[in-house]
Amino acid sequence: MTKLNDNYTKLASSYVFRQVNEKTAAFASEHPDLPIYKMGVGNTTRPLAPSVVAALHEAVDRLGSEATYTGYGDELGESYLREALADYYQTSYNVSLTAHEFVLSDGAKSDTANIASLFQPGSTVAVQDPVYPVYVESNVVLGNRIVYLPCVEENNFVPAPPNEPVDLIYLCSPNNPTGTVATKQQLQTLVDYARANDAIIIFDAAYSNFIRDESLPRSIFEIDGAKECAIEMGSFSKWAGFSGVRLAWTAIPQELKVDNVSLLERWRRRQLITYNGPSNIAQAGGLAVLSDIGQRECADIIDYYRVNAQLILSSLRSIGLTVYGGENSPYIWAKVPGSKSSWEFFDELLEHTQVVVTPGVGFGPEGEGFIRISAFASKETTKIAMQRINDYLATGS
Amino acid sequence: MTKLNDNYTKLASSYVFRQVNEKTAAFASEHPDLPIYKMGVGNTTRPLAPSVVAALHEAVDRLGSEATYTGYGDELGESYLREALADYYQTSYNVSLTAHEFVLSDGAKSDTANIASLFQPGSTVAVQDPVYPVYVESNVVLGNRIVYLPCVEENNFVPAPPNEPVDLIYLCSPNNPTGTVATKQQLQTLVDYARANDAIIIFDAAYSNFIRDESLPRSIFEIDGAKECAIEMGSFSKWAGFSGVRLAWTAIPQELKVDNVSLLERWRRRQLITYNGPSNIAQAGGLAVLSDIGQRECADIIDYYRVNAQLILSSLRSIGLTVYGGENSPYIWAKVPGSKSSWEFFDELLEHTQVVVTPGVGFGPEGEGFIRISAFASKETTKIAMQRINDYLATGS
Repeated sequence: MTKLNDNYTKLASSYVFRQVNEKTAAFASEHPDLPIYKMGVGNTTRPLAPSVVAALHEAVDRLGSEATYTGYGDELGESYLREALADYYQTSYNVSLTAHEFVLSDGAKSDTANIASLFQPGSTVAVQDPVYPVYVESNVVLGNRIVYLPCVEENNFVPAPPNEPVDLIYLCSPNNPTGTVATKQQLQTLVDYARANDAIIIFDAAYSNFIRDESLPRSIFEIDGAKECAIEMGSFSKWAGFSGVRLAWTAIPQELKVDNVSLLERWRRRQLITYNGPSNIAQAGGLAVLSDIGQRECADIIDYYRVNAQLILSSLRSIGLTVYGGENSPYIWAKVPGSKSSWEFFDELLEHTQVVVTPGVGFGPEGEGFIRISAFASKETTKIAMQRINDYLATGS
Repeated sequence: MTKLNDNYTKLASSYVFRQVNEKTAAFASEHPDLPIYKMGVGNTTRPLAPSVVAALHEAVDRLGSEATYTGYGDELGESYLREALADYYQTSYNVSLTAHEFVLSDGAKSDTANIASLFQPGSTVAVQDPVYPVYVESNVVLGNRIVYLPCVEENNFVPAPPNEPVDLIYLCSPNNPTGTVATKQQLQTLVDYARANDAIIIFDAAYSNFIRDESLPRSIFEIDGAKECAIEMGSFSKWAGFSGVRLAWTAIPQELKVDNVSLLERWRRRQLITYNGPSNIAQAGGLAVLSDIGQRECADIIDYYRVNAQLILSSLRSIGLTVYGGENSPYIWAKVPGSKSSWEFFDELLEHTQVVVTPGVGFGPEGEGFIRISAFASKETTKIAMQRINDYLATGS
């Protein structure tokens, strides 16, 4: 008789972005004449770079011709793209990894969730609070225990090492949702802790290309000793607008071992037996992103969002709000004025300004009293949304 | 201190297709002048249909324009494609399912592996023997117990129901590797067993479009009572040449419940928290496959492979080999002549004819003494390969 995995009943009853979407849809149906300004979900809006579009078309043409058609590729990702990523890490981060140490997939969300299956069920997993919900939920369904590391104004939203033994530590920098970036020294403290305590760091670098301050680390492997304790997930989603195209990677150094077993070889095995690799069209596009012209064009896209982030920061500051992040990140973490809750302020902004944000408490208890604002909308939407919030908060009308 | 999921140590040491590829590569490097005829791995070789190529180009163009760009879509797949699949099931199979009952993904391999995570670890899982290795391996790493259902000449390679209690039953029809197709009566027996014993059937229909005999079922939901006990996975890979493009679906009827919990809602939740949906480019291509012209063009592609399968069948029969499958399937399951093992015959064919097949034992113990031959090569390769096998076996030279 079939029995279900009971851990699913331990999940929170609703996903924050789904709640945001439902509330927004309900408001829109009650007020069909009012335009809505979506600054909530972190979804990209700029078109793909021209060099990427050209590469995608070429990939489609190859699939349409008998002479150049290909079917299944390498389940771990095509070697040309893994080689290009290894070159990129060397050139951009001065980090030496081989193509063998990269495994490609459809998304960092999939990888950060699936990597947990390599570890013993019942493991203790530390996450930042507030945090991207995927790390928590994918571990809860495996029966793992979650330890929350508070990320608050007092520690500039970068956690101290856990004060109890943990097996895995998920870190995201630039952080989703707080938009803050860990310094090299802060990451060094966490790497030192992981090495001393035989813990593994799972580092989500999905937003690393928003970092322009050269003193800030963009890869965990820029930190001494990280190759003995850390795994890194990277993504083309926010970097190159691939949120719909789907392409990402996980980098695991060969020297990273648990009980003398290579985590890289375990992950390769996991992917080999359950996955067939990302789309070959997407991979051709990924190679174009990594070309010189592709990198320049994608940097322009990120600059567009960075200008939005600056506009949001300066606009909210001008009316006296306390804001964090947004300097090397697409997310602005703003303190709710007065004593309102995240959801109260969300409702108020939706009702009075039609601007949709994400309530901070949706990312964890320490997010209460904050909202996350995304810089991924268009410049026009961002300007109008900020003007409307300013008008409303400045005059209360 | 991090501990690994020990179930990985219970996996077989090597994956059959990897061994095949390694032996082939070794032979090729020793004999660089000899052409190799690959009839082993089931990889598609025909180019995509023209209407699909056009739809993929349009999708790429949309991503390149500010006005039409889209990022993240529905994590469960775009509703337009789920609606089209529901229509397709109604029209082609006379099966009524709503769009809500379809969840899209990158591949049936991913889904058949990931679905197991919905059930209690330690579940008992019945699989056909021989069998596609993914079902076994994805369940072994979850700590599940495998029960093998022998698929042999005596039962025409369609298993009888388990003779011990099981929680899940994986079925694949048309079968990989034997190429045989279960009749409605045979599936009815298994569905009746599942309902009587509270077991769930996971039905892999990846090859259903190779069925042209209208008396044979192409969807498990053509069987009475299946909606109360079965899940179906389907794929665009073999149907439309999407093995590299990556697109598939899982259909779970709303009435299918375990302990009064909807499996559909559990699967939707699992995908929502760990996945971001298949590539939007691939989904646009999938819609084109489901159009009238797309279906006609894809049927032509399948006809091409079906002609290959007929050639393989008649050619091997002409030299007295016992062969199965191939009539409504791209796979031919051939009995090894004499008393040689699968791997001995594999080595002999590679050495003397340079034709690569897949040793049956790589799919399970009951596959010993058989080889699988794939009809997915080009017509030219198929003809030469069959001629070479015939010449060798007929004359021993």
